[in-house]
Amino acid sequence: MPNHITLYQHGTLALLVPGLLKGTISMGELLKHGDTGIGTGEGLDGELIILAGKPYHVHATGDITLASDSLTMPFANAHFARYAPLAELENVDEEELNRQIVSLSRASNTFFSIEVKGTFSNIQTRAAAKSTPPYKTLTETAENQSVFTRDQITGTLLGYYSPQVFNGAAVGGFHHHFISDDHQFGGHVLGFHLVKGDVSYQLFDTFEQHLPVSDKDYMQHDFSNDDIQGSIQKSE
Amino acid sequence: MPNHITLYQHGTLALLVPGLLKGTISMGELLKHGDTGIGTGEGLDGELIILAGKPYHVHATGDITLASDSLTMPFANAHFARYAPLAELENVDEEELNRQIVSLSRASNTFFSIEVKGTFSNIQTRAAAKSTPPYKTLTETAENQSVFTRDQITGTLLGYYSPQVFNGAAVGGFHHHFISDDHQFGGHVLGFHLVKGDVSYQLFDTFEQHLPVSDKDYMQHDFSNDDIQGSIQKSE
Repeated sequence: MPNHITLYQHGTLALLVPGLLKGTISMGELLKHGDTGIGTGEGLDGELIILAGKPYHVHATGDITLASDSLTMPFANAHFARYAPLAELENVDEEELNRQIVSLSRASNTFFSIEVKGTFSNIQTRAAAKSTPPYKTLTETAENQSVFTRDQITGTLLGYYSPQVFNGAAVGGFHHHFISDDHQFGGHVLGFHLVKGDVSYQLFDTFEQHLPVSDKDYMQHDFSNDDIQGSIQKSE
Repeated sequence: MPNHITLYQHGTLALLVPGLLKGTISMGELLKHGDTGIGTGEGLDGELIILAGKPYHVHATGDITLASDSLTMPFANAHFARYAPLAELENVDEEELNRQIVSLSRASNTFFSIEVKGTFSNIQTRAAAKSTPPYKTLTETAENQSVFTRDQITGTLLGYYSPQVFNGAAVGGFHHHFISDDHQFGGHVLGFHLVKGDVSYQLFDTFEQHLPVSDKDYMQHDFSNDDIQGSIQKSE
């Protein structure tokens, strides 16, 4: 029976900061931990959004393909979906949506996921372009990204919320990815205006943090001089 | 088959800081996640050290009893032991032991446990005294603790190491508990001089963080004004 109360995470946001961008988990392995999730490919290769077991890969070109089981990632989240309705919201931007979700869910001290299915009058996303070794820092790599905007679009926003004390391991607060219903538009969400949407949520009591202990670059890196909090705020 | 690569944690260090000291996991439940571990009882009731499935409870009186399955805890760690030899060390204090373990294990970017079986020329431990609701902050509660010192003693030091990015969730760096071979002396370790000891370690690739989502006090607490990093440094 799938476990619906655990959020699985491979890698940390912190390891992306100095540019530890090697793919250390395959999509095939990640999908054992959930049918729903987000992530990025090796070398910060685009943005991934997994819905109903299908891993959509939003490339820096804007194209969306289905990722193969052999795609590797330095960072990803996954869980088995069992969302419960939270609210139907109208005319809210990202900040207001996040605020209302925290207020309604009363779950800001644990991990949870949200799913918003609705119509957006405007949405802005980004997808980073894959870089190759030697990798640069997250801030430098993220400069090489495409930003996309679209008006009047229906789709699914998949988000994860992490308590602030886990900022660094994860993104403290919300982290949203999006894909349109026609699977032609998506990415890491930078901002939006939601005309009308059904918001559902799924609360976790367990955060299963998996670390790439077989990766020598990760294990030998000295994180003490990395500005993890600053870089996450800037890039996420 | 027991899982030897996962460190289980219930609660966070952060929740102790404002005094969320209610027991939210029972010893019976904790022991399903490991035969080895550490923790504290409800209300910061002493110090727990679990070895070979036996949960020893060091009270503020200095007495040591076996905890029952019904004892509840606000914070605890557990794992299934399978240690590998790391080194035999002589004439080291706590700081030097920690430094050598990090250097030898090359594992400072993941969670691991250490076990030191040896003879100590001196060791200092503490055990907090149980407080009752309304609970005070960790710093205030920890003022009401007993400090014990002992010379020439053989025993087992059980420690956990957490990467610095998880400070707040766990104690960044080392967190050691101790119990003597005769089970008459123990507690949370404040300092020691090890005459000679066998150091073994066990590396984890997964940190399973369980949160007390059924506890309203925890879920409704506003952590934004708590000095989590400062209090952990002061108390641990």
